[in-house]
Amino acid sequence: MSMAHQTAAILVIGNEVLSGRTREANAYYAAGKLFNRGCRLSEVAIVPDEADAIISTLNRLRTQFDAVITSGGIGPTHDDITMESIAEAFGVELIEHSYIVQAMTDHYGEEGMNEGRRRMSRVPQGAKLIRCDKTIAPGARIGNVYILAGVPYIFESQLDSILDDFGDTPYQRIEIEVALAESIFANQLTAIQQQFDDVEIGSYPGRCGPNPCGKICLSSQDKLRLNEAVDSVNSMLKAISN
Amino acid sequence: MSMAHQTAAILVIGNEVLSGRTREANAYYAAGKLFNRGCRLSEVAIVPDEADAIISTLNRLRTQFDAVITSGGIGPTHDDITMESIAEAFGVELIEHSYIVQAMTDHYGEEGMNEGRRRMSRVPQGAKLIRCDKTIAPGARIGNVYILAGVPYIFESQLDSILDDFGDTPYQRIEIEVALAESIFANQLTAIQQQFDDVEIGSYPGRCGPNPCGKICLSSQDKLRLNEAVDSVNSMLKAISN
Repeated sequence: MSMAHQTAAILVIGNEVLSGRTREANAYYAAGKLFNRGCRLSEVAIVPDEADAIISTLNRLRTQFDAVITSGGIGPTHDDITMESIAEAFGVELIEHSYIVQAMTDHYGEEGMNEGRRRMSRVPQGAKLIRCDKTIAPGARIGNVYILAGVPYIFESQLDSILDDFGDTPYQRIEIEVALAESIFANQLTAIQQQFDDVEIGSYPGRCGPNPCGKICLSSQDKLRLNEAVDSVNSMLKAISN
Repeated sequence: MSMAHQTAAILVIGNEVLSGRTREANAYYAAGKLFNRGCRLSEVAIVPDEADAIISTLNRLRTQFDAVITSGGIGPTHDDITMESIAEAFGVELIEHSYIVQAMTDHYGEEGMNEGRRRMSRVPQGAKLIRCDKTIAPGARIGNVYILAGVPYIFESQLDSILDDFGDTPYQRIEIEVALAESIFANQLTAIQQQFDDVEIGSYPGRCGPNPCGKICLSSQDKLRLNEAVDSVNSMLKAISN
């Protein structure tokens, strides 16, 4: 068993997201799951159904991070070019996988094995299959790249099946509500962040009617340190309010 | 007046998105607006609140596409490092802008001009301000980069104020519902796509209970060609169903 991935990127492939037709859902789902696993999601990239964009982005991400999860473009139509693009990115052939052909034939019959389903039987040479019970055509893994479907219920099922490969020490998150303008406590929060370099502290402003009401969000893989940082923030806020 | 941008990228800066805490909303909003303007959104990148990631991604995107819109990281707290990172990306100083200092002082009073608000008065040297009526602290534009807020209602207001810079011929979109598995019509759809290279055709499968029900989505800047392509798809589907 190889080491679990500590960092990951998600590559979403789909014109439907870039054209504003579809609100992206898979990266959001995966982000929460990776956080809970303790794998750091370092980048999300959304690119169109174009081979050049897919290849160059994938090659950048897979060298920069421990693993890449792709979403979309593995169906049977002309705009589904993820498998062939990833094969090209790795410099390997795109091959028809005998297991997938068999599974498709078992399900749809010989007469149902049209060109579209043949197309969905192709994976980069050397890839391992990622099966789930939501679909006949599987995803695939080659090297540190996991190739998953774009349809959300299939993506989610495939993602859940590979999560053991990601992270080891879960992140914990605690949020503190703050009815103060950020600029009032910004300096003190900076000092706390400098004191806790193993805790990630974010400040997210909001408004409740005319009044500021934001959140300070703390997360860490070290629960003890997280609680200490939360105590520091609470003390700081109390001192300001008094 | 310079030419309108024909291609754009969006750079979302924020740990809260990568950790799964917040579902990304600003790129989705902007994607729809750019589509309606006829500006092609070519990439969305989501990166953490880290200077290296912001600088390298911004420099890549601003050379690759006509314009870049950034979202997030322009508040007063320690995790707001977008302005200084973009100044560094352009190799210019980060300066305190006298207009912003004045506007802040007018609004909050001399005694309200704490270090956090001073921080929010800084923009890359040479930047133009992007003002909106939702906030005192403006966004900024330097070169082909538009620096907007991360809070959605402010982002939306700032984006709406710059949209005239983007696109000229709106895209139109028509969707056709299809109660067939994609693989049944994939080949014919490929042929139609090849015939209409000025129309973007996507196929998005779905299920209605046990039955396939997807959509074929066509979009183009040429309404006449769009309608011709829609007619071709409808004829093709009718021929298959008969």
